[in-house]
Amino acid sequence: MATFDDIADALARQAIELPSWAFGNSGTRFKVFAQPGVPRTVEEKLADAAKVHALTGLAPSVALHIPWDRVDDFAKLRAHAEDLGVRLGTINTNTFQDDDYKFGSLTHVDERVRAKAIAHMHECVDIMDVTGSRDLKVWLPDGTNYPGQGDLRDRQDRLADSLARVYARLGDHQRLVLEYKFFEPAFYATDVPDWGTAYAHCVALGERAVVCLDTGHHAPGTNIEFIVTQLLRLGRLGAFDFNSRFYADDDLIVGAADPFQLFRILFEVVRGGGYDEGSGVAFMLDQCHNVEDKIPGQVRSVLNVQEMTARALLVDRDALAAAERAGDVLGANEVFMDAFYTDVRADLADWRASRGLPADPMRAYRDSGYAERIVAERVGGSQAGWGA
Amino acid sequence: MATFDDIADALARQAIELPSWAFGNSGTRFKVFAQPGVPRTVEEKLADAAKVHALTGLAPSVALHIPWDRVDDFAKLRAHAEDLGVRLGTINTNTFQDDDYKFGSLTHVDERVRAKAIAHMHECVDIMDVTGSRDLKVWLPDGTNYPGQGDLRDRQDRLADSLARVYARLGDHQRLVLEYKFFEPAFYATDVPDWGTAYAHCVALGERAVVCLDTGHHAPGTNIEFIVTQLLRLGRLGAFDFNSRFYADDDLIVGAADPFQLFRILFEVVRGGGYDEGSGVAFMLDQCHNVEDKIPGQVRSVLNVQEMTARALLVDRDALAAAERAGDVLGANEVFMDAFYTDVRADLADWRASRGLPADPMRAYRDSGYAERIVAERVGGSQAGWGA
Amino acid sequence: MATFDDIADALARQAIELPSWAFGNSGTRFKVFAQPGVPRTVEEKLADAAKVHALTGLAPSVALHIPWDRVDDFAKLRAHAEDLGVRLGTINTNTFQDDDYKFGSLTHVDERVRAKAIAHMHECVDIMDVTGSRDLKVWLPDGTNYPGQGDLRDRQDRLADSLARVYARLGDHQRLVLEYKFFEPAFYATDVPDWGTAYAHCVALGERAVVCLDTGHHAPGTNIEFIVTQLLRLGRLGAFDFNSRFYADDDLIVGAADPFQLFRILFEVVRGGGYDEGSGVAFMLDQCHNVEDKIPGQVRSVLNVQEMTARALLVDRDALAAAERAGDVLGANEVFMDAFYTDVRADLADWRASRGLPADPMRAYRDSGYAERIVAERVGGSQAGWGA
Amino acid sequence: MATFDDIADALARQAIELPSWAFGNSGTRFKVFAQPGVPRTVEEKLADAAKVHALTGLAPSVALHIPWDRVDDFAKLRAHAEDLGVRLGTINTNTFQDDDYKFGSLTHVDERVRAKAIAHMHECVDIMDVTGSRDLKVWLPDGTNYPGQGDLRDRQDRLADSLARVYARLGDHQRLVLEYKFFEPAFYATDVPDWGTAYAHCVALGERAVVCLDTGHHAPGTNIEFIVTQLLRLGRLGAFDFNSRFYADDDLIVGAADPFQLFRILFEVVRGGGYDEGSGVAFMLDQCHNVEDKIPGQVRSVLNVQEMTARALLVDRDALAAAERAGDVLGANEVFMDAFYTDVRADLADWRASRGLPADPMRAYRDSGYAERIVAERVGGSQAGWGA
Repeated sequence: MATFDDIADALARQAIELPSWAFGNSGTRFKVFAQPGVPRTVEEKLADAAKVHALTGLAPSVALHIPWDRVDDFAKLRAHAEDLGVRLGTINTNTFQDDDYKFGSLTHVDERVRAKAIAHMHECVDIMDVTGSRDLKVWLPDGTNYPGQGDLRDRQDRLADSLARVYARLGDHQRLVLEYKFFEPAFYATDVPDWGTAYAHCVALGERAVVCLDTGHHAPGTNIEFIVTQLLRLGRLGAFDFNSRFYADDDLIVGAADPFQLFRILFEVVRGGGYDEGSGVAFMLDQCHNVEDKIPGQVRSVLNVQEMTARALLVDRDALAAAERAGDVLGANEVFMDAFYTDVRADLADWRASRGLPADPMRAYRDSGYAERIVAERVGGSQAGWGA
Repeated sequence: MATFDDIADALARQAIELPSWAFGNSGTRFKVFAQPGVPRTVEEKLADAAKVHALTGLAPSVALHIPWDRVDDFAKLRAHAEDLGVRLGTINTNTFQDDDYKFGSLTHVDERVRAKAIAHMHECVDIMDVTGSRDLKVWLPDGTNYPGQGDLRDRQDRLADSLARVYARLGDHQRLVLEYKFFEPAFYATDVPDWGTAYAHCVALGERAVVCLDTGHHAPGTNIEFIVTQLLRLGRLGAFDFNSRFYADDDLIVGAADPFQLFRILFEVVRGGGYDEGSGVAFMLDQCHNVEDKIPGQVRSVLNVQEMTARALLVDRDALAAAERAGDVLGANEVFMDAFYTDVRADLADWRASRGLPADPMRAYRDSGYAERIVAERVGGSQAGWGA
Repeated sequence: MATFDDIADALARQAIELPSWAFGNSGTRFKVFAQPGVPRTVEEKLADAAKVHALTGLAPSVALHIPWDRVDDFAKLRAHAEDLGVRLGTINTNTFQDDDYKFGSLTHVDERVRAKAIAHMHECVDIMDVTGSRDLKVWLPDGTNYPGQGDLRDRQDRLADSLARVYARLGDHQRLVLEYKFFEPAFYATDVPDWGTAYAHCVALGERAVVCLDTGHHAPGTNIEFIVTQLLRLGRLGAFDFNSRFYADDDLIVGAADPFQLFRILFEVVRGGGYDEGSGVAFMLDQCHNVEDKIPGQVRSVLNVQEMTARALLVDRDALAAAERAGDVLGANEVFMDAFYTDVRADLADWRASRGLPADPMRAYRDSGYAERIVAERVGGSQAGWGA
Repeated sequence: MATFDDIADALARQAIELPSWAFGNSGTRFKVFAQPGVPRTVEEKLADAAKVHALTGLAPSVALHIPWDRVDDFAKLRAHAEDLGVRLGTINTNTFQDDDYKFGSLTHVDERVRAKAIAHMHECVDIMDVTGSRDLKVWLPDGTNYPGQGDLRDRQDRLADSLARVYARLGDHQRLVLEYKFFEPAFYATDVPDWGTAYAHCVALGERAVVCLDTGHHAPGTNIEFIVTQLLRLGRLGAFDFNSRFYADDDLIVGAADPFQLFRILFEVVRGGGYDEGSGVAFMLDQCHNVEDKIPGQVRSVLNVQEMTARALLVDRDALAAAERAGDVLGANEVFMDAFYTDVRADLADWRASRGLPADPMRAYRDSGYAERIVAERVGGSQAGWGA
């Protein structure tokens, strides 16, 4: 097995994008619990994200969600972010919070609604041009709740046409990142429900269309690391939305529900070249901190990804290959588990300290007084939340 | 197989309770789509429910949700309902829309919060005393999102204690109906996640504690009709919350996702005596009409239950028993499917017409002008919705 | 809605291939229950299949499984089948019953084993040349049971290479039909686990590589009709393996577990052109009659497909499209369900009688004395079973 | 957090029963792969089990399966086991490998078959009287494959009656341990499908009837540690069958699929008193080593349980309780994860060495020459397998 020293440099290139919406209030259909100190503006969200980056060195960029994070002057916002020490990253489209999209957006039977959704995405590309963002993230709520409600085939055809019209607007260095989701908010048929559908559309669009794999968007029992492997092999793994789940799209902290699964996923990323310099795979969180504190929730999340990446990098791949060739199932599994069971936390604390970062970012946050300060300062205005 | 005439009388005793909240706006965590004409008051909800009953003869009572349906004078509301031709039914408690319940209600680690939740339930019993309701429905959002967050055992013990304090307040003819749910809003551990837990608590409470089976609250693949059979056998099936699902707790129209499952469930109800006069099993809808019209959505729902009940009553149980004794798997299945595949719709239309009801309640609703009238009348005020 | 007369001609072109192995003994890992009268030879299997076709007119061809159905002279077997009134159909490869394949066949790390598996498939193509079969069915047991056991990526690359070597051997009018399966017999990672993987490999192979959709091979909750729609749209739906399931790959009689799902699947087949003359979609059963009688089990199965096809053909697609355009969710669903709830059995009985077939094939089989005859005749020898 | 020294004594009382059948060949319905050196007799199975115990100190007893392990003289077998350094443990009944049980055993509609099954179980109690075993394990394959096939209610009533007749035969210090299973081999309805059913039957039987929780026998997503908590609370958790799963009842090595789940389960065992001296909870493996070597597979399994038990014992429960009281979700989770991420392997190696056990039991087995010896010696005769 590699030593921690062997992987220290590789760890240094890790970058995990934070979603601006993780800092706002969120919840279930039953209740959104409000937290004191929650940002009221996109600038406050950026400040919180910058705090996470300052504590961990892992989160140099922030994804925006349009229209939630729409501002008059994105150039100014970009400069503001850079002043805070972070970049603006992926631009996320939103076609789920407008009454017009009740029966679909890019797949809608009515050309007027489709055009509206496409125009929204074009606006997002305009924003990308200003923010310098590479990726346009398209997650669609489109689908139907009842058998018979919509023509599944026509919806695919309209989707293909709409996506082509969005894709055509992209610049040479920009990408369309198409996300799939098993279900919710549609309860009968979702229009991009699986990686196969996202992949087929991306291939039809062109080389700059890639798939986003959200770790919470699969059927029970799905082997997600297999999909990682396959999409990397096919050259279409564009991005991750990290989170974790026990049941549906729970949006819990990445690694909280099944840390071993996160390890397996990251191992396949490493094995498949997705962690290599310039691989083109974007790593992002997409979570909801419904009952836990949001800023330390994000800190915990990036640390979880870092810890598992370290373990994944430690796997002795030569020993693994030798065991496989020998048909030694238990031996191969032991090599694999050896890395997983290695406690990398002390080494990572040293690694952080050696780079001028707090050895224990969670404690450093608690000790920083930041939480108390934002609670005191952020009064009045309305807190950010889904839709805010 | 029985003829339709044989079952006509049995059909006449069918009663399905409507939930007041089905008439208000609802949605997912992503979006609540507003519908024109949605009720603004509990009285308007009752009017809509009464319309469903007038069209179908199937829905003589309405469940209330406290505090959503709280009024100053429940005696007056009761009289109002009766004037409309319906009764007030089950009183549903709500411990999920208050910040105090973020970490639980009846299971909360803090006695103050538990006492508040218990007091709320006592208030609901007070209301039942006025409305003449038999059943106090307790569905709890209680649970935890992360491993380690709560002590699962202590939460059960507190739950048992809290339920006992609620149960003690019930009158001799009142029941506590305890509902279980697989997951949501809690994403790691739910405090009443399965029928076994609900059953064990009911047995500990006493004879007037019974289980509510919501058809959408089970793990994938669960054989729900088996649970119906078992709870009837154990004497603890108190109520149904009907709806349907493809994935999680989708709350779609009952019978929409898997009509054959609804048939199997109703067959076990009939076989187990749950449809007999005075069985004590309450039948209720618990659905969300997120994208379809609400009043006809309720009409469709009660018709679905009626149509499947008719089919369930038609099963030739003697032939079934004979095939089972003979080890004739295909023969038994054929007897069973014969009833399922029988198209009872024309007979039911005649049956309705012979009782002074519209032969086609869906069309009768469309032709009634009711939808247009409420859209015109219900302007101003705020529409009812979850929490309204 | 169309009338039954409107669809009578379309029904006449229905053809469902029977699997030779459905007539042999089968079971679970716990027990294979033997049935008296089970075939001992492939000729006896063909006789049973021909009986199903004689009774229903629906099953003009029989799929073979090599090596289970290997004979010295396939030309003679072909003639024998034709004498019985059926054709030889799809040739199924088998790489799961040889110790060499413990760690994979087409994906095996050892070139020797891969070459053996490929040679087996080449032999199957040789057989196809004699039997006149169009389709080579490739279902692979390949996969791993433990994380770390195999290199997921290398396995895909070897799979692609092996498939190409098999594909190269096909004649111009032959097809490679690649089947995917969610899990079993592999319990950690399956090498062709989903339609996306099968599709990607087929595209890489060429136009005569198509996907086989086995209705039992999906994760819980998967919307199968969506996959049907998508594969038809992409031009790669090659075949169905019909069966049904409540849990995993239960291999129950098609339509037995969820008849409404079968209806939805067949509706998408019809809507997507898969039922059109010359569509290239092969319809086949793949079932195990573990506890029910095998021949009537097959009769019941093809009747289930026919009955649901009739219902699917009856859907009023114009009304459906109009309701969709109007955003009328309940109206669209009602149009859809109207066809599903229509009892087509009496019309189908008439339809059969008018074509010289028994009105009630199940009864006709019982009355035919065939069951008693084979029990009496088929003594001695060893019964066919999986592996026999 | 506790130190390893604090928990060393608690670790010393760990005992995990090995199943005799884990040493024999096993597989899926598709294929049983034979392994050289597999036992041909129960004595050879005991020898293999004793080897596992000698290497780990964790496996002092062996469960038998009747009739697979039936011998003429169980007293002699008991003495033989004791000579090898192990005890005979749980006696497992088998009602799934006889044609009579095709439609059920304890639930069969035919009293003759039921009586046969009951007599079999009585024979098992006779054996227990000789072997000194405490527990009669009853796992039933009983169920139905098709809706309508059997009367679900009658089957429960017959089950209750049959179990009572079995229970009546137990001695004062013997227990009936009733196992539940979600599905397989029955594919529609299983007669003991969930813990609630097993629990209700046990309560009806009496105090010496307890539930067996097999970790692989649940619906997808089920929170197993919750069931552990509940059954301990209700005083009816009798035994564990440990294994792991990604999909259905995969019977993989315990902890292989989801080590964090195993940790959570063992933590609830510890928290609920199930690991206390004299708790009455039996810990047993129930696995199939289909592709991996069997003896080291068992060694790895008991080590996995030991390692996770150590981590579970390390949890700082005071800190956990304090965090819960403070509503500190992230803090509580961190306390919990801290124990899980602690690498206990080196400490356990020392602990073993200090007790005269090999520090690395897996390596010690490889180095022992045992595998080579049994391959050389165990030729001729027929290998044990399921049914052998």
